[in-house]
Amino acid sequence: MSTTVDKYFELVDQHQQKFIETLREVVAIPSVSSDASRRGEVVRMGEWLQARWEALGATCKRVDPGKQDLHGLELDLPPVILGQYGNDANKKTVLVYGHYDVQPALLEDGWDTDPFTLVETADGRLVGRGSTDDKGPVLGWLLCAETHKQAGLDFPVNLKFCFEGMEESGSEGLDDIIVAEADKWFKGTDVVCISDNYWLGTSKPCLTHGLRGVSYFHLQVEGPGADLHSGVFGGTVHEPMIDLVHLLSTLVDPNGRIKVPGIYDQVMPETEEEERSYEGLEFSHSALAGDLKRDVIIHSDERMTLKHRWRFPTLSIHGVEGAFYAPGDKTVIPARVRGKFSLRTVPNMEPARVAELVTKYLNDEFAKLGSKNVMKVIESHGGRWWYSSPNHPNFVAAARATERVYGVTPDLTREGGSIPVTLTFEENLRVNVLLLPMGAADDGAHSINEKIDKRNYIQGIKLLGAYLHEIAVTDLTA
Amino acid sequence: MSTTVDKYFELVDQHQQKFIETLREVVAIPSVSSDASRRGEVVRMGEWLQARWEALGATCKRVDPGKQDLHGLELDLPPVILGQYGNDANKKTVLVYGHYDVQPALLEDGWDTDPFTLVETADGRLVGRGSTDDKGPVLGWLLCAETHKQAGLDFPVNLKFCFEGMEESGSEGLDDIIVAEADKWFKGTDVVCISDNYWLGTSKPCLTHGLRGVSYFHLQVEGPGADLHSGVFGGTVHEPMIDLVHLLSTLVDPNGRIKVPGIYDQVMPETEEEERSYEGLEFSHSALAGDLKRDVIIHSDERMTLKHRWRFPTLSIHGVEGAFYAPGDKTVIPARVRGKFSLRTVPNMEPARVAELVTKYLNDEFAKLGSKNVMKVIESHGGRWWYSSPNHPNFVAAARATERVYGVTPDLTREGGSIPVTLTFEENLRVNVLLLPMGAADDGAHSINEKIDKRNYIQGIKLLGAYLHEIAVTDLTA
Repeated sequence: MSTTVDKYFELVDQHQQKFIETLREVVAIPSVSSDASRRGEVVRMGEWLQARWEALGATCKRVDPGKQDLHGLELDLPPVILGQYGNDANKKTVLVYGHYDVQPALLEDGWDTDPFTLVETADGRLVGRGSTDDKGPVLGWLLCAETHKQAGLDFPVNLKFCFEGMEESGSEGLDDIIVAEADKWFKGTDVVCISDNYWLGTSKPCLTHGLRGVSYFHLQVEGPGADLHSGVFGGTVHEPMIDLVHLLSTLVDPNGRIKVPGIYDQVMPETEEEERSYEGLEFSHSALAGDLKRDVIIHSDERMTLKHRWRFPTLSIHGVEGAFYAPGDKTVIPARVRGKFSLRTVPNMEPARVAELVTKYLNDEFAKLGSKNVMKVIESHGGRWWYSSPNHPNFVAAARATERVYGVTPDLTREGGSIPVTLTFEENLRVNVLLLPMGAADDGAHSINEKIDKRNYIQGIKLLGAYLHEIAVTDLTA
Repeated sequence: MSTTVDKYFELVDQHQQKFIETLREVVAIPSVSSDASRRGEVVRMGEWLQARWEALGATCKRVDPGKQDLHGLELDLPPVILGQYGNDANKKTVLVYGHYDVQPALLEDGWDTDPFTLVETADGRLVGRGSTDDKGPVLGWLLCAETHKQAGLDFPVNLKFCFEGMEESGSEGLDDIIVAEADKWFKGTDVVCISDNYWLGTSKPCLTHGLRGVSYFHLQVEGPGADLHSGVFGGTVHEPMIDLVHLLSTLVDPNGRIKVPGIYDQVMPETEEEERSYEGLEFSHSALAGDLKRDVIIHSDERMTLKHRWRFPTLSIHGVEGAFYAPGDKTVIPARVRGKFSLRTVPNMEPARVAELVTKYLNDEFAKLGSKNVMKVIESHGGRWWYSSPNHPNFVAAARATERVYGVTPDLTREGGSIPVTLTFEENLRVNVLLLPMGAADDGAHSINEKIDKRNYIQGIKLLGAYLHEIAVTDLTA
């Protein structure tokens, strides 16, 4: 393996500038999935990928998921590009996922340069929409395969891929395709690798083995038949907003402690091994406070902040629907309001149990208010957490690859948010899934001036290749 | 007086149909002050009034208050029409106020008939936008004067009037004119009468001698520099929305009791005379619950409901600016939120003292939260209450007039809301102000199918005339 991998690394270094040009080419395709006027560009980006893989000899299948209703406009959903590169019964099969659509971006949002023109800065940033999320990583797999082929290097695995164009718009249509293709196109997959998240910091690579779930609730309080004038009715009727703020205030204390009884009972106990895994993580409160612009961090200990991001459930209050929300003054008593809040859930919480506990608690608290209004708890969404052991051979292979490229043992991280496709693959393909990020914490994936550092991009292309070589020599049944 | 008043009543009865036609004529002018495309109609309505009064011999002065910025569009404000009808040093001078603009109205809002075409129903309703608010009452003064003149009846007082075209849009420009004209055009005014509110119920007339003030607050909580993702930051930062719901919940309990210490200390004590004034008022919870569509009434006693509308301060929560307010789910932690709430204030509360108590209390409560966010209380508006003794000769005259027209002693009412011009007149002209409503509680002033009952309109025209005759023979210094 050594010789091939070393040769591959050497070639990647040689082709740095060419790889940056390829990134420039794809950043220039404004594949914004949320913008109806750019749907054609999204499709064009998908077709670009398919053509390039087919030129390399891959077999592709374009799946069109159907129609989308975008604010009343009927649009064709962009294609999901399924692919198979290599089909050697003696090799392992790795399925990789990525997305070729991007977040919206306008110069007037505050970008320093045109978002769809890749700019290489003197300090080594490659700035452009999609550079890190997720065109850089998606190119990574392609450039790895191309480099091997051009140099006549043996490609170490059979590669399957699944590239979608709707990730930034809810991945509409994707789940159905994964379910339908689980025992067809995806048959024979040994492991899955997704490169679509970020390092914990800016200098140290990581592997990600957990995501939180989310249970989203609408807490509705309904009173009179129509909005009322506060001059006439204030203090004489039960106001839905007054009931609502009382109920919301019972959910969580100002230090983030969830007050719903039983919520913490299902949380997976901490182990010594887990405790040790926090040692040496690249994470500091001073950097975090800088990112936040104001130090509003609850915990004094960095480890506790990470634990509340990764391994404890948390509850956030997002807003209120139905009340007065505009600037200025309005003396209205809103007739029906909906408080929106969600819990981030962790192993081993069950969404159904969470909904049951939350609903029972709010019913009890509402009864205490003695209000004549009508209260209802609606669970609008319940998505499960994902947790994988970092000791699985898929992760061990990725750790070895990381050490080889970066010379360090990667951080083992979890994420506070969710990447639903992770769980969809795991549940339907019944194989291990690994999250192997290419970009850094400060890439600004959904912000202005999105970038990927040249280092992360070039070393990332090496990393993906090294990972495939490691998989080839790893006993996945261990 | 008797002969003249009886004759006047007889003439009003004879001219009923003609008066309804005049109402039809003005309802047909869609003088919607909030609609830029109808500004010309508002002006046309003002000019109609001025022309009609001038034809009668009144001296008018058209005051153009200047420009208005309506959502970025610069518009001329509609004129304030000042008038003087009669100038006899031996007569008292009554200033009347009304407004000739109306609320918006569209058939598709749910009106049964075209809102700008007056429809007389079989059960005696005159349906049309502005019929009761405030074109009916404004016409009342005009038709009273015209009827006297045409029949050769002596007009009992000197009448000054002030009719504006922006009441439904914040009376922009009016206060400055009242201040400027207080010792000029309005000089010599003995009493003021405003007919622009409603009976407490639907059958019994009333005089209104009190209005509540309003102190409006923005409670701002500011945290991180930008909105955050709840997956990444939930449970690790102090969330402004969580602080806000805790603070809002400390302001008032679900039964409307204000929890700000000291707020009730300034409230005028109840007297036996006041207690007696509640007897026989036309007001029932069953009717109120019907109007509300759901019985969400806090108090079990009707008198307590009225007291909380009229004589106690109340606190309402209107909404939240800066948080997620749309339908659907969004997993945002809003960075800066503003809770909007207001207190309705009563004699003898001082707005400055109210702001001081509210601010101190919220500062204390925020300190208890231990949050690192930044909290600020902003008083965006502080308008005073108005309270007049119902024993003032101006009210006694109006009560006698009511008895003469309706054969009953009028209810003495206060209102929970505010009519700011009342206080402006009282403070600047330093004379007594009376609110003498023409319409009934169910007129639907700002709703669909606005109406004035034919009975209220015709008897109301009599009432305004009878009131002027009573003023003529009343010792206002008593």
